[in-house]
Amino acid sequence: MKVVALAGGVGGAKLVAGLAGILPSADLTVIVNTGDDFSHYGLKICPDLDTVCYTLAGLANPIHGWGRNNETFTVLEELGSLGGETWFKIGDRDLAIHLERTRLTLEGQPLSKICEHLCEKIKVAQRILPMTDDPVRTLVHTRTEGVISFQNYFVKYACQPVVKGFSFAGIESARPAPGVLHSLHQADMIVICPSNPWVSIEPILSVQGIKEVICKKKAVGVSPIIGGKALKGPAAKMFSELGIVPSAVAVAKHYQDLLWGFMIHESDLRLEGEISGCGIIPLTTNIIMNNDPERQRLAKELLAFWEARNSIEEHI
Amino acid sequence: MKVVALAGGVGGAKLVAGLAGILPSADLTVIVNTGDDFSHYGLKICPDLDTVCYTLAGLANPIHGWGRNNETFTVLEELGSLGGETWFKIGDRDLAIHLERTRLTLEGQPLSKICEHLCEKIKVAQRILPMTDDPVRTLVHTRTEGVISFQNYFVKYACQPVVKGFSFAGIESARPAPGVLHSLHQADMIVICPSNPWVSIEPILSVQGIKEVICKKKAVGVSPIIGGKALKGPAAKMFSELGIVPSAVAVAKHYQDLLWGFMIHESDLRLEGEISGCGIIPLTTNIIMNNDPERQRLAKELLAFWEARNSIEEHI
Repeated sequence: MKVVALAGGVGGAKLVAGLAGILPSADLTVIVNTGDDFSHYGLKICPDLDTVCYTLAGLANPIHGWGRNNETFTVLEELGSLGGETWFKIGDRDLAIHLERTRLTLEGQPLSKICEHLCEKIKVAQRILPMTDDPVRTLVHTRTEGVISFQNYFVKYACQPVVKGFSFAGIESARPAPGVLHSLHQADMIVICPSNPWVSIEPILSVQGIKEVICKKKAVGVSPIIGGKALKGPAAKMFSELGIVPSAVAVAKHYQDLLWGFMIHESDLRLEGEISGCGIIPLTTNIIMNNDPERQRLAKELLAFWEARNSIEEHI
Repeated sequence: MKVVALAGGVGGAKLVAGLAGILPSADLTVIVNTGDDFSHYGLKICPDLDTVCYTLAGLANPIHGWGRNNETFTVLEELGSLGGETWFKIGDRDLAIHLERTRLTLEGQPLSKICEHLCEKIKVAQRILPMTDDPVRTLVHTRTEGVISFQNYFVKYACQPVVKGFSFAGIESARPAPGVLHSLHQADMIVICPSNPWVSIEPILSVQGIKEVICKKKAVGVSPIIGGKALKGPAAKMFSELGIVPSAVAVAKHYQDLLWGFMIHESDLRLEGEISGCGIIPLTTNIIMNNDPERQRLAKELLAFWEARNSIEEHI
């Protein structure tokens, strides 16, 4: 059972960790958003790739979900006393990854190769692919601050500015990273993780050829919105500001042509009809993943949902 | 009494610290070698500037002379476990300086401005000037390894390759940093610190216009070689490999047109005649600086030597 998951940062990494816990490592490929990547102090920083990799390596900070566990902040403190920029909270061990990635980038290595190498070093056995080796930058179009980079929006402005839309600079010429399309073609199941539809999943879907494969094969998704609210991050706020009532239905409609099935939270049971109305099979369960057993339980339910699709369709 | 000192790294920084201890801070300007500067992990690293600044700020590692005191190496250890390059021993606090310098460089600020800013932050009251804001790279021409960068020679190869000569890439178009020529013109005393003549002082002297001013005004120097050996670093080895017997005399001859007086170690008393023979006034004293009182004692003797030059010349 070859599984390919599309993921952004913390929420996506949780489901990916659940899948990793129940699948042979060779059977899981994760295609990760790189639209959040940015340059800071001249370093190449890939927040979503790092979050997914740290989570799978068991190195993620258990409180925040991003950054490293057992972390120290000596460099950041010193940067503060030098008058440097400290809004992006880089820990010392985390910094080493950014430095080494930058060094290898300057040597001319593509991100996918660097990611493979770093995964080997931190002992991630699953295949982690950046969506593209080409530079793509998610831009947030806001009412008050104009067009700003995603990291400025997310960290510096703490998601406060009202959004008008998004664009992905460089997306037209971004080719899927080696292995991305092949893994999707070979996949027995494609999962759209409970990541932000606008700024985590949309950039991946916008890379040449990716949406087309998923449209044809169909995916199964997990809602990042429960009871009209995002478990983490600005997804619900973004839907509202774009004039869409935030709900699991809004997400299902957003992915309309891509999804066969969609897992929503049990408290959203009343939305099942509307989701079915979109031609997507809803599955209502507990989609909150507070710990490893909950992540694996959800991953198992996801697999069972997909594997039962023939009988489910007959039943309908 | 306006003093301008030309300095490289550890040896130069010791004398500069001595001068700083006895002069009003506004009266001391240090022109620092930037030929050792290099890029590592994409960061702009200026070893000699940092050594001088850390020393004056009281932040230098008291054992090595370079790097920071109370230092930790979390990032370096992590880089090691990621398979990164660890031959250049960057500590965590030291790394912050390189990051902030890189950030400000990418913002378009010249090195001299960045240096002024960082000096203010780490509380260095004296004026520290890079020799130039333009990129200059000291290249070591070796018999076995070809032409290698100074840091590769110095750190990676531990000064083992036999040298044939030196060149300073970019020197032809390097302009003196703002304030360099003015400070030399205004100086009441110019000091050539006990730094490596070939790779610390020569790059400074090779920047447009600097040698000419010193030739005209004359400087006073302190020998980096005692009893045919360098107190630290490869200066004596370089003289030998270039076919010159290493001694305070060899250094005096190297600076022949620039020096009025030259301080040599008391154990080199027998060399006084040869130095006088070059038209340079020798002063024999204890030039070893193991601690602050010794640094200040030597700085005082240096000032007294220079201030007494009229009576010394009458005496001759």
